[in-house]
Amino acid sequence: MRVLLYRGDGQIAAWAEGLARAMPGVQTLGWQEGEQLGACNYAVLWNPSHGLLAQLAQAAQLKAIFLMGAGADTILKFGDALPSAPIVRLGDTGMAVQMAEYVAHATLRYFRRFDEYEQQARHGLWSPLPVYAKEEFTVGVMGLGKLGLRVVETMRAFEFPVRGWSRTPKELHGVDCFAGMEQLDDFLRGTRVLVSLLPLTSETNNLLDRRRLSTLPQGAYVINVARGAQLAEPDLLTLIRSGHIAGATLDVFRNEPLPAPHPFWDEPRITITPHISALTVRSEAVRQIADKIAAFEADQPVDDIVDRNLGY
Amino acid sequence: MRVLLYRGDGQIAAWAEGLARAMPGVQTLGWQEGEQLGACNYAVLWNPSHGLLAQLAQAAQLKAIFLMGAGADTILKFGDALPSAPIVRLGDTGMAVQMAEYVAHATLRYFRRFDEYEQQARHGLWSPLPVYAKEEFTVGVMGLGKLGLRVVETMRAFEFPVRGWSRTPKELHGVDCFAGMEQLDDFLRGTRVLVSLLPLTSETNNLLDRRRLSTLPQGAYVINVARGAQLAEPDLLTLIRSGHIAGATLDVFRNEPLPAPHPFWDEPRITITPHISALTVRSEAVRQIADKIAAFEADQPVDDIVDRNLGY
Repeated sequence: MRVLLYRGDGQIAAWAEGLARAMPGVQTLGWQEGEQLGACNYAVLWNPSHGLLAQLAQAAQLKAIFLMGAGADTILKFGDALPSAPIVRLGDTGMAVQMAEYVAHATLRYFRRFDEYEQQARHGLWSPLPVYAKEEFTVGVMGLGKLGLRVVETMRAFEFPVRGWSRTPKELHGVDCFAGMEQLDDFLRGTRVLVSLLPLTSETNNLLDRRRLSTLPQGAYVINVARGAQLAEPDLLTLIRSGHIAGATLDVFRNEPLPAPHPFWDEPRITITPHISALTVRSEAVRQIADKIAAFEADQPVDDIVDRNLGY
Repeated sequence: MRVLLYRGDGQIAAWAEGLARAMPGVQTLGWQEGEQLGACNYAVLWNPSHGLLAQLAQAAQLKAIFLMGAGADTILKFGDALPSAPIVRLGDTGMAVQMAEYVAHATLRYFRRFDEYEQQARHGLWSPLPVYAKEEFTVGVMGLGKLGLRVVETMRAFEFPVRGWSRTPKELHGVDCFAGMEQLDDFLRGTRVLVSLLPLTSETNNLLDRRRLSTLPQGAYVINVARGAQLAEPDLLTLIRSGHIAGATLDVFRNEPLPAPHPFWDEPRITITPHISALTVRSEAVRQIADKIAAFEADQPVDDIVDRNLGY
């Protein structure tokens, strides 16, 4: 069996080694821009190029494409150039707990005013601040997949009121659930800390624009750990500067790395991290891919196949 | 029934109001330095003076003393001047979840290197840092009472390895438990993030001195949310400056407010908060005190009576 490994950043050595260990007898191959693609049965990709996908579309023996990270937007954006073979997302490869860590840290930092205490300490100031009431700190999670559910569970354990929004209706114990565009405004109106864990699709692109961000209550916070393109960046900046939004913690941006002369860098109420909220745990990803290749080979059903119409 | 309310800071109005609502017919009284104490059946105190305790020791009808906050050290330090009536600690009045929030925030900040990302962002730097392995980030909780157990549970939910240390042996699912002075060094040797939730007693005073802090592994962190006197402050500073200890988050200090010319203020690896890690939730405290007074009146057993020999 031949498996193509390709990453936009070229770092495939450790993946090749892991896959060889997980699937004795597998033959891995690489590809570089301009090369002729060798015959392969499976492709394991991250940030592929148009040129590679065009060749994969002609690969007669290709049975499936696996993604090395979360977010099918990284491949679906090529639209018509895509091969017809099924595209398989990663399941939870240790990403969910990392997301929960990131969101819990950011939310607690706002709720307990730790950022303000740091400012005070820098000036040698000992001064307890008024305490926020948890009833006024509803955490609203957009996207209730594996990652969103873990975040919901974590914030509930800290006794925050939690609400969720998803494309299709869900029922979750102890969580106010909203669904669809028609319930989005209601969801936002009662959300003090907005957490986006949505996939990037044509529907979620620019979803958080000026009107919707204005629907959040005065003093709301925004945490984006999904994809930068969901957020209208200039609108967020306007609302932070007007004081309507109290702060934002952003791990993802429309252009990454966030360009050097971007106004976000100079806004102290925006906390920037370089897309580190949840990293693929390679060993676990390799294990999942090996298991799923075995299932394809045995004609068994395979989970996590991307729905190209939904975009995730 | 007559209940004395006294706080060192004088803020008793809201307590009087709450208690009157919770116990219709109760008569509350105050006291000021130099005054003659009126007859009372119960005393509800925080940071009492020697003069008040001397008068309470003569109060023939006094059945019990209640504390308004966590930490019997605030009253037991008066030793011989104490009345003989039982002293009753607060149970969990919403403090446990606050402690869990504080400790989770501080631990995640170190583990996920958010403090370093903030430094980077201040310089417009986009640069993912190497990820710490959770197996190398064992959280060690000293003190396994109500607050300690909640912290243990929270850190386990984030999948950190967790160990605990207590005066007497305990067994907790999924937690390596150590007990007594003879197991303290073993406990410290494997602890990357040390969290103190111990009561302040003659045994824990200066417990975390240079020798014991040196027993922590290179690169360890210290989080103190208990009492400042447990920590030898100059020793901590020495070990942070030498690089053996990577950082500390301190909410409590030997002298509070932390004096203006204290070297902790100038050490960037020490995060200072002004004793806000867990505040008594007054409404819940009042409810507990009212319930326990009712139990005393009915000669029923009452929980959380302080053991004067153990000091908590």
